[in-house]
Amino acid sequence: MKKKIKKVNAAILIIGNEILSGRTQDKNIAFISNWLNIKCGISVNEVRIIPDVEKRIIHNVKDLSKKFNYVFTTGGIGPTHDDITAKSIAKAFKLKYGYHNEAYTILQNYYGIKKFNDGRKKMAKMPTVAKLIYNPSSAAPGFVTKNIFSLPGVPSILNSMIDNCKKYLIKGLKVQSKTLNLFTVESNISKKLAAIQNKYKKTVEIGSYPFFRLGKIGVSIVSRSTSNKQLNKVYKELLKLAKLKKIKILNI
Amino acid sequence: MKKKIKKVNAAILIIGNEILSGRTQDKNIAFISNWLNIKCGISVNEVRIIPDVEKRIIHNVKDLSKKFNYVFTTGGIGPTHDDITAKSIAKAFKLKYGYHNEAYTILQNYYGIKKFNDGRKKMAKMPTVAKLIYNPSSAAPGFVTKNIFSLPGVPSILNSMIDNCKKYLIKGLKVQSKTLNLFTVESNISKKLAAIQNKYKKTVEIGSYPFFRLGKIGVSIVSRSTSNKQLNKVYKELLKLAKLKKIKILNI
Repeated sequence: MKKKIKKVNAAILIIGNEILSGRTQDKNIAFISNWLNIKCGISVNEVRIIPDVEKRIIHNVKDLSKKFNYVFTTGGIGPTHDDITAKSIAKAFKLKYGYHNEAYTILQNYYGIKKFNDGRKKMAKMPTVAKLIYNPSSAAPGFVTKNIFSLPGVPSILNSMIDNCKKYLIKGLKVQSKTLNLFTVESNISKKLAAIQNKYKKTVEIGSYPFFRLGKIGVSIVSRSTSNKQLNKVYKELLKLAKLKKIKILNI
Repeated sequence: MKKKIKKVNAAILIIGNEILSGRTQDKNIAFISNWLNIKCGISVNEVRIIPDVEKRIIHNVKDLSKKFNYVFTTGGIGPTHDDITAKSIAKAFKLKYGYHNEAYTILQNYYGIKKFNDGRKKMAKMPTVAKLIYNPSSAAPGFVTKNIFSLPGVPSILNSMIDNCKKYLIKGLKVQSKTLNLFTVESNISKKLAAIQNKYKKTVEIGSYPFFRLGKIGVSIVSRSTSNKQLNKVYKELLKLAKLKKIKILNI
């Protein structure tokens, strides 16, 4: 008997004034979302970006934790005063906040007892019941509390850690996508496109995104589905539409 | 008598499966946030990214509209079936959805009567009471409903339109920022930094962000405040801290 695999979703919570203020361009959303879909078959269904403010973190982790299968937080787990993610999550779920034995040992071994100062020790503080997400770049681990995965904000470190989340995740159905790039304008195909979407509304999600390439405007038609068969059917209908309207296709 | 200027905040609501799925890297958040702060003295306090799903759009515009002075939505105002922002906002506030007279005239003049097909006409449909945000790139206007500003998702078009939002906005106090880049690690300064933050907690917000530059690791200390005077005081304390700890400063 085939194991039943269902849809699994997640939310991302970006914690950090630097992203909200526009000072820093976020790179973690696209990375986490792609990783979750490709490696785990999990679809990101909502993203929020909030400041480093305790009550906002508490409200949002509670809310998202209820609404989605998993929540991924980024940012706020370093050694400075504005790193309050771990403490806020502990408060949100009334969990004991303090030194996590294994995290403490990992960090002490990494820095050596002499250089293991208070700032560095702070990175071992978290909900004491949390499970660890190992960090091959800079030792300080991320952690899993209930269905919430807390990762650092620095993209290179986050990227190096994310595979270590896998063992805690239940996999879902991977969403496949197929893109057709047409040299036309959206309004030229919108009616027929709506008809195709309507026909496959239960299995395929069709998006239309204008582009500018090779000095010409065009539209990327992106179809997404957990069924390859349905995806191919839609793709054929889209090719037919392009032929009918005599629209050139951009092959890339 | 000096006119009293207060803090004004905003939220950004990114509507679009292509951002959520990680297919497209968002560029609008940082742009809108910077523009709002620099040109209008408005601080972005929350960002959400949600799919093109009517009930999700309705829930979020209502929720954010209540919580923040302004809401900026991006995406979902084009001619295709997945462009449902205008209709959803009308539903959220029980407003009549239909052709907006002025928008209809603008689009008809732009395309000419012959080429003004159904797809293009759809872009004139919105809450009929909305005020328009003119679009110098491709005619199709954005619109203001209550405290909600709806803009397109294509960054180059959005960028060309944003100045036209200004006349509808009440300006607030601009948040100034000052950055000090130090060649050190966060844990080396975290204690003293927390003390400085604590001393100025009512007027200045201090953030600490690791960086990798010129082959070395370092920390950017970003201070943000609506008071230049307070900002300069904090900067002096940070310079003192660097001197005390014999930390090199990166001048950029």
